[in-house]
Amino acid sequence: MTLQVYLSGEIHTDWREQIVAGAEGLDVRFDGPVTDHAASDDCGVAILGAEPDKYWHDHKGAMVNAIRTRRGISAADVVVVRFGEQYKQWNAAFDAGYAAALGKSLIVLNPPAHQHALKEVHAAALAVAEDPRQVVEILRYVLTGALPDRDRS
Amino acid sequence: MTLQVYLSGEIHTDWREQIVAGAEGLDVRFDGPVTDHAASDDCGVAILGAEPDKYWHDHKGAMVNAIRTRRGISAADVVVVRFGEQYKQWNAAFDAGYAAALGKSLIVLNPPAHQHALKEVHAAALAVAEDPRQVVEILRYVLTGALPDRDRS
Amino acid sequence: MTLQVYLSGEIHTDWREQIVAGAEGLDVRFDGPVTDHAASDDCGVAILGAEPDKYWHDHKGAMVNAIRTRRGISAADVVVVRFGEQYKQWNAAFDAGYAAALGKSLIVLNPPAHQHALKEVHAAALAVAEDPRQVVEILRYVLTGALPDRDRS
Amino acid sequence: MTLQVYLSGEIHTDWREQIVAGAEGLDVRFDGPVTDHAASDDCGVAILGAEPDKYWHDHKGAMVNAIRTRRGISAADVVVVRFGEQYKQWNAAFDAGYAAALGKSLIVLNPPAHQHALKEVHAAALAVAEDPRQVVEILRYVLTGALPDRDRS
Amino acid sequence: MTLQVYLSGEIHTDWREQIVAGAEGLDVRFDGPVTDHAASDDCGVAILGAEPDKYWHDHKGAMVNAIRTRRGISAADVVVVRFGEQYKQWNAAFDAGYAAALGKSLIVLNPPAHQHALKEVHAAALAVAEDPRQVVEILRYVLTGALPDRDRS
Amino acid sequence: MTLQVYLSGEIHTDWREQIVAGAEGLDVRFDGPVTDHAASDDCGVAILGAEPDKYWHDHKGAMVNAIRTRRGISAADVVVVRFGEQYKQWNAAFDAGYAAALGKSLIVLNPPAHQHALKEVHAAALAVAEDPRQVVEILRYVLTGALPDRDRS
Amino acid sequence: MTLQVYLSGEIHTDWREQIVAGAEGLDVRFDGPVTDHAASDDCGVAILGAEPDKYWHDHKGAMVNAIRTRRGISAADVVVVRFGEQYKQWNAAFDAGYAAALGKSLIVLNPPAHQHALKEVHAAALAVAEDPRQVVEILRYVLTGALPDRDRS
Amino acid sequence: MTLQVYLSGEIHTDWREQIVAGAEGLDVRFDGPVTDHAASDDCGVAILGAEPDKYWHDHKGAMVNAIRTRRGISAADVVVVRFGEQYKQWNAAFDAGYAAALGKSLIVLNPPAHQHALKEVHAAALAVAEDPRQVVEILRYVLTGALPDRDRS
Repeated sequence: MTLQVYLSGEIHTDWREQIVAGAEGLDVRFDGPVTDHAASDDCGVAILGAEPDKYWHDHKGAMVNAIRTRRGISAADVVVVRFGEQYKQWNAAFDAGYAAALGKSLIVLNPPAHQHALKEVHAAALAVAEDPRQVVEILRYVLTGALPDRDRS
Repeated sequence: MTLQVYLSGEIHTDWREQIVAGAEGLDVRFDGPVTDHAASDDCGVAILGAEPDKYWHDHKGAMVNAIRTRRGISAADVVVVRFGEQYKQWNAAFDAGYAAALGKSLIVLNPPAHQHALKEVHAAALAVAEDPRQVVEILRYVLTGALPDRDRS
Repeated sequence: MTLQVYLSGEIHTDWREQIVAGAEGLDVRFDGPVTDHAASDDCGVAILGAEPDKYWHDHKGAMVNAIRTRRGISAADVVVVRFGEQYKQWNAAFDAGYAAALGKSLIVLNPPAHQHALKEVHAAALAVAEDPRQVVEILRYVLTGALPDRDRS
Repeated sequence: MTLQVYLSGEIHTDWREQIVAGAEGLDVRFDGPVTDHAASDDCGVAILGAEPDKYWHDHKGAMVNAIRTRRGISAADVVVVRFGEQYKQWNAAFDAGYAAALGKSLIVLNPPAHQHALKEVHAAALAVAEDPRQVVEILRYVLTGALPDRDRS
Repeated sequence: MTLQVYLSGEIHTDWREQIVAGAEGLDVRFDGPVTDHAASDDCGVAILGAEPDKYWHDHKGAMVNAIRTRRGISAADVVVVRFGEQYKQWNAAFDAGYAAALGKSLIVLNPPAHQHALKEVHAAALAVAEDPRQVVEILRYVLTGALPDRDRS
Repeated sequence: MTLQVYLSGEIHTDWREQIVAGAEGLDVRFDGPVTDHAASDDCGVAILGAEPDKYWHDHKGAMVNAIRTRRGISAADVVVVRFGEQYKQWNAAFDAGYAAALGKSLIVLNPPAHQHALKEVHAAALAVAEDPRQVVEILRYVLTGALPDRDRS
Repeated sequence: MTLQVYLSGEIHTDWREQIVAGAEGLDVRFDGPVTDHAASDDCGVAILGAEPDKYWHDHKGAMVNAIRTRRGISAADVVVVRFGEQYKQWNAAFDAGYAAALGKSLIVLNPPAHQHALKEVHAAALAVAEDPRQVVEILRYVLTGALPDRDRS
Repeated sequence: MTLQVYLSGEIHTDWREQIVAGAEGLDVRFDGPVTDHAASDDCGVAILGAEPDKYWHDHKGAMVNAIRTRRGISAADVVVVRFGEQYKQWNAAFDAGYAAALGKSLIVLNPPAHQHALKEVHAAALAVAEDPRQVVEILRYVLTGALPDRDRS
């Protein structure tokens, strides 16, 4: 039974690639948002027509992106939400809340400096990690029962 | 049929008081989180015992607060989420996602400067306002059909 | 146990008033959309700010109205959808589909001329009436068991 | 993960064929109503026996068609609802409401002239398009992240 | 917290009256179908117009009655289904299945002779009684903890 | 997308075999209860140990059978419920109610003589047939749009 | 908005009375199982008839009790589950799992010695307390925002 | 249609292996918790970092294990819960409650000595067995209709 994992949040580092590479050989299927920042911002107007007002420009795009993200989160067994060092990242916290309300298993991945600010998000999570490698280890353990220390080193 | 409104988000300005005062006379019941910052941070350890580790200190408190916030959002017809000028406010975005997944009517209240960063949250909202007065006007219209210009000025 | 009835659809005749008057004395609470056509069209921009583009003008208003209509339909035991003689009335058919998917008891009220065009909507209804008086008689029967002929004439 | 798309509404032009052809190569499975108008009208009596009364003739057919349409909409990730130039098309608006209540991602496809009359339906949609080609572009973007301008021209 | 009890099934003996009388003083609200057999059979045509075909005559009535029965069962905490000595009573078994699928607490009341034929219905019940008095005793116990022998005799 | 069809009810004639044979070539998967009457009655005690009391003998079996029937109905797109000429058949009506509450498409198959007694069950159905061949024709139409007259004769 | 609290588990000490007394003046309504051990064990046979086999004696009673406990848990905002010093208390752990699956806010109350054995139950809880007084303090904080130290001492 | 079976509870005997071996050839897929006791206890700290406090050590592990168990139970058609001779086994009872609230078919497997203490858990089960072989026989019967005595010996 393939584990469906949705990788939400930060799009400026290669954390998704690290997790996907690390999980090679495991029965996992990954999904996530479109991570091309420019495409993600402009998809609405590029397809459905330009908007002179920045608000509606953004709105059209965010709604088109929602077709992908809502489906991805709804279909997931596990939702990993990554908070990076910078930016507001309210979409990441929104996805975490959305996933929590649907009863998804939530894993939060963030630098320690964000700990206090994320405490309400952490309270809804089943695991809080700092390194993408830890997410891989959780996925491996959940699927196979193998732990990092005694099984792989 | 009393309208249940949950007021989520920023706790450093008097926006809740403005809305409650403005809605006087309407059939609305307001709910929201505990807005005493110190109590909200420390409720877990104050009741359930001290934790030397800051993470668990915060975690205990955030879980106790979740008893109140999850009930409040679940019981609401309308969830208003306020983003202020400062701080990460990930709990506000988390509440917005949680409310959206439950199919609640979402009203987002934020300064214009946050528009682009909030576009995914806005895409799930039925109204985006900049001033608490606008939230009151929406509640009045939803309950009575009266609009601000011709009915009150 | 008060019966919650939502009266959806046409706003250009007095069918709602006929039903409310006819149901006097029954344990029913009625709800419905804002029926002031101009207010309903302009509520979004009147409260949240003007839009030069007619599409967004309409969109803002329709989303504010959705706060009221979705709550009203969700809370209803019975949803009555009225199709009048004129106009497209797609909002009425939309409400009928929305109510059907939520498992609400649906009563459709329409002139006989619309019968064929409404057949898919009728297929989801528990009653199809032509006259508001019939809707009142259904509500009376459902609440009291009394039928029009032998009990009231 | 194949994207399930239900194509609801108008049956008198080739918009479905355009979308299916345009989406060739994408991981999409399309479904929709029976589009043979005469079969759709007569399926109930053809299988279950003639009805002298036109209302019940239509009713029997609409209920048999509902077996297909409700399943198709329930199984869909995305529901596209097309409004054509003519006819009442209340079944299209009914399907849109049904899909919205189930939380499906809704794309509405209509000529600009219908904009005002469809504003309540648009308020529940994540995209409003005028051309079947735009629907294909949305599906391609949602599945692959590729946008029309820079990726295909 | 008032206990909602729906009394479904047989309409030819006074079992409902026995239960209602026996439960006097308990915090229970009873609901049930229209028990006037003729009204129940004819409500559809009496309100919505005559049908020459007996099938549609019955169908119209059964659908109007469904407005009441579905609401009553949906709102109930406990559904009591009574099978009498005679008739097919498929509506009683249908209500039992409907209640079971909604997770209602089901009490079945039937003469011992029907035991084998009702075994699938019994398998979904939390209590199987032979006498209306036993149903009253269950309701009293559930609400107050008092048992018949030591508490009342 | 394979159509899941659950065949509930009468086990004394070959109606299931007729439908399965007639549907050959269609993308349908059929399920149903164990139709070996003796096995169905005795499965509980045969596996879990004898019961001297006939009620518990039956109860144990009915609960084991419920593992199969509840899963089959829950997984079905279409539930066909057959009422034969004889017996109480309360399990058939129970399954119909169970399926209706879950929102399944219900097809009832019964001899005309049962029409009045089944009117509440019919009110929840999308089709009422008298002959297994009609059920096959509905399945063919739902899957392919082909009608019996013009396509097969 | 009254807080509904279900008090599940141990029936041999006065922890329920302590919580009810401590919560005096708060807008809370408490519910719980029948705590008369003998009545709880014998309710099935006392009402529905004796059973020679102890298994069915117990089964009849447990099913009647389930009418009360399932309703109580389903209606609760908060479920408090108390594990005492003795006995298997599998019904307490069952109620905790039941409440968790329904998304209720779970508070577990147990002596420290049970900590390791309860770790899976704790993982589903929002608070783990050792003393009934702490449960009262949580309820007071959730309803009023008042914390024990600075507000009451 | 493969039957999904989740095997919850005791991890100190080979009951899972017996069931899996006995079910060879049947269309069943088994799932269950990680049964390596040490790995299950330590998975949280092994992956996410050590905790000096035993409570949080256990908590981190129990939450990681919950990712696996909640998914397994949610995906199951049948949940078998085994209670062994020793230990508190509250996680087993918790899983039973969790499965019951989700409407899963529950089979309980326990030695006769535990009968009285498990009566509330049994009240939610469709079968209560003492031997893993009986569970296999139930699975075989549910899938094939074959009973042990006459079909296999």
